[in-house]
Amino acid sequence: MKFCDRLFEAAKPIWDQYHEHPFVTGIGDGTLDIEKFRFYMIQDYMYLLDYAKVAALGVIKADDEKVMGHFAQITQGILNEEISVHKSYMKRLGIKEEDVKETKASSVNLAYTHYMLAVSHGGTIAELVAAILPCAWSYWEIGKKLDENPDARHHEFYGPWVTCYSSDEFAQAAIWLIDYMNELAEGKSEKELARLEEIFLYTSRFEYLFWDMSFNKEMWSFEETRRIEV
Amino acid sequence: MKFCDRLFEAAKPIWDQYHEHPFVTGIGDGTLDIEKFRFYMIQDYMYLLDYAKVAALGVIKADDEKVMGHFAQITQGILNEEISVHKSYMKRLGIKEEDVKETKASSVNLAYTHYMLAVSHGGTIAELVAAILPCAWSYWEIGKKLDENPDARHHEFYGPWVTCYSSDEFAQAAIWLIDYMNELAEGKSEKELARLEEIFLYTSRFEYLFWDMSFNKEMWSFEETRRIEV
Amino acid sequence: MKFCDRLFEAAKPIWDQYHEHPFVTGIGDGTLDIEKFRFYMIQDYMYLLDYAKVAALGVIKADDEKVMGHFAQITQGILNEEISVHKSYMKRLGIKEEDVKETKASSVNLAYTHYMLAVSHGGTIAELVAAILPCAWSYWEIGKKLDENPDARHHEFYGPWVTCYSSDEFAQAAIWLIDYMNELAEGKSEKELARLEEIFLYTSRFEYLFWDMSFNKEMWSFEETRRIEV
Amino acid sequence: MKFCDRLFEAAKPIWDQYHEHPFVTGIGDGTLDIEKFRFYMIQDYMYLLDYAKVAALGVIKADDEKVMGHFAQITQGILNEEISVHKSYMKRLGIKEEDVKETKASSVNLAYTHYMLAVSHGGTIAELVAAILPCAWSYWEIGKKLDENPDARHHEFYGPWVTCYSSDEFAQAAIWLIDYMNELAEGKSEKELARLEEIFLYTSRFEYLFWDMSFNKEMWSFEETRRIEV
Repeated sequence: MKFCDRLFEAAKPIWDQYHEHPFVTGIGDGTLDIEKFRFYMIQDYMYLLDYAKVAALGVIKADDEKVMGHFAQITQGILNEEISVHKSYMKRLGIKEEDVKETKASSVNLAYTHYMLAVSHGGTIAELVAAILPCAWSYWEIGKKLDENPDARHHEFYGPWVTCYSSDEFAQAAIWLIDYMNELAEGKSEKELARLEEIFLYTSRFEYLFWDMSFNKEMWSFEETRRIEV
Repeated sequence: MKFCDRLFEAAKPIWDQYHEHPFVTGIGDGTLDIEKFRFYMIQDYMYLLDYAKVAALGVIKADDEKVMGHFAQITQGILNEEISVHKSYMKRLGIKEEDVKETKASSVNLAYTHYMLAVSHGGTIAELVAAILPCAWSYWEIGKKLDENPDARHHEFYGPWVTCYSSDEFAQAAIWLIDYMNELAEGKSEKELARLEEIFLYTSRFEYLFWDMSFNKEMWSFEETRRIEV
Repeated sequence: MKFCDRLFEAAKPIWDQYHEHPFVTGIGDGTLDIEKFRFYMIQDYMYLLDYAKVAALGVIKADDEKVMGHFAQITQGILNEEISVHKSYMKRLGIKEEDVKETKASSVNLAYTHYMLAVSHGGTIAELVAAILPCAWSYWEIGKKLDENPDARHHEFYGPWVTCYSSDEFAQAAIWLIDYMNELAEGKSEKELARLEEIFLYTSRFEYLFWDMSFNKEMWSFEETRRIEV
Repeated sequence: MKFCDRLFEAAKPIWDQYHEHPFVTGIGDGTLDIEKFRFYMIQDYMYLLDYAKVAALGVIKADDEKVMGHFAQITQGILNEEISVHKSYMKRLGIKEEDVKETKASSVNLAYTHYMLAVSHGGTIAELVAAILPCAWSYWEIGKKLDENPDARHHEFYGPWVTCYSSDEFAQAAIWLIDYMNELAEGKSEKELARLEEIFLYTSRFEYLFWDMSFNKEMWSFEETRRIEV
């Protein structure tokens, strides 16, 4: 059993809930309220900027030229290429650059991105990969699952999202990370593996909270400060 | 108006809620369920270990020998001296070192500590101080407020907590940080000050969530994974 | 006077020596011993890998999406694109990937790259830019100067080097950094500017030592350990 | 054979040269020019400030509360306690705080401290310990060796230096690091051990260069910029 099989098993009770979450199923059957998706899109865009920083830390933490090059490509891809899904949805939704700049990160968004950043600054390349893996891998899982419904990719609004995350290109990005995680795990002690699993489970949970936060358009989970303009 | 006056004003709507929170008022009037306090004590102990790491980052980010020395003292104080309140409460509550090691950080705890760590790793000494200031300062405010009730410090179980956070020694630690924040803010542009305020408000909110998490003994805010042993 | 004019003036006594150094003049008139160039080429290749790490830290330290994107491009360019001059020279010199892996960094190389890395990890984006600027800028100055000799770019072996560092493409990369340094300096206090100048002068000196180290094919500046295989 | 025995063997050709260096033997027989010692004392003081930062990184990189506490104590000891030897020598030599602030770090000093800082920021706790170990351990070796001459510790000026570094207290600090390095090496792959050895050898060399730099009162190893006031 490869290490990522162990991770998958451990995270299954959490990941199973992604597939049942109304935000995710709503993308699949096209019933998701567009305002919820709009909230998600802006928060996810901010999330990606920090994800790019974590990938840049991969360049720093890796000691192999090829791996450094791969993380540089991830960083560069997020920041400079057409993040096709995001950019085109933002256009369709009329979201401007200023809207993103003026929006604050929600508590769950902050928690998730800064957990990855802190683990990656303080830890090893293996810990960094364990932290970012649930995002890439579970989106691919969700993409594939939604794509089992033959109508999903043809939905007028949510189709491109399903197409993107079930694409071969996205699959390859996820698979590279899975393979690299397996490679990094080789020869590690059980104590080290348990630490990697812990990180993987933590960011798996943050993934769930991100779907939930998006569905509820929730900035902070207490009413009074939600009223305050931060 | 000094910069910390501005911070205090901005955070007031959040800080006011600390004073009204049943966890805080329950310490003051002695009605707080001891099981809730036990949950809090273990999570707070884990929080302090990460707070010590943030203070150690203060040694690294400071460029002045005296400031470096001060942050070294904070770090050292947390890790090696009698953290009197914590150690003595843990003894009274029968919490052993193993109990702490076996407990996982709650989602709010992780979010709060890793937000401070990420900001401090990536940012300046001013950003670091803005991140840690709400904890020290608001505990002092709470200590003083609770101490207005003359019975609070004499309560058999919660008295030492009130005594600690309303003490001169604790006050001085908070005041040093406040003064240093004011000093660091001098000559900064409005853009930089707004960023410091943003950080201060974020950790002020995490403070509130920490009280709330303790009151509800909540590990993660979704039921299904709470059932899973992490 | 822009801040980079001040930097240029301050560094002039050091930079003037680059133009007179036999390694540099030897590239220009084609008299440089190819064995010295070979030594330089391998050390410079290792240098670039760490330079890419520093550029990746630029992604992390920048707070503006466009600047993040630019640093991602620098990192990516170094690691994944044809670093035309290096790759083609390495081919001509018969230097294989294994040769690079088996070579150790010289003391000057280590000192220079780790100074930039440490400053960039601990400091601000402005300090990072001050650290990396002398390399980009002075290579452009050297390229232009050597290109004043019309034969230089036509030299059979050293011509491509001269062509590369006097090219418009390289100029634009240097100019972007110069402009960004000027922008970052705006509104900074004299204390902050003096710190940036200090960093700029330190890496300007390391640049000189790098030419000197290459000319002398020097690993460490004391004989006894040079004999030891590290 | 413990890992530190391997390190000792590997570094022996370098360390042997410490014992023969005129700066070191001059402390032992009292013949060292006081102006050279004065130069060393100021540079070493600056070195210690950065060493304290590296020790603070130990608090951040360690995952064990006791180890965190130990690194906090090292940091705190350097910054706040009587660094008896330094402070008393600085008093005797009439070196004031301002003198230290006005002095710039020499090239070797910068190279050595920033190598340790960069390795510790980017690497693991094991890499950090490998980087700082030669300083503590070799000073103890030198202290013991010089103390074999019964007159050394009674020399009017250099006696306290010899007494300090041959003391039980200093020995214990070195031994803690040696033991911890051995513990960290357990179960590591040969690739990882080779990396630790490489770091240990690099800082062993920087140690030698530091003695040499002090003996020659050398700021930078090229004349022209030595004339420039940095």
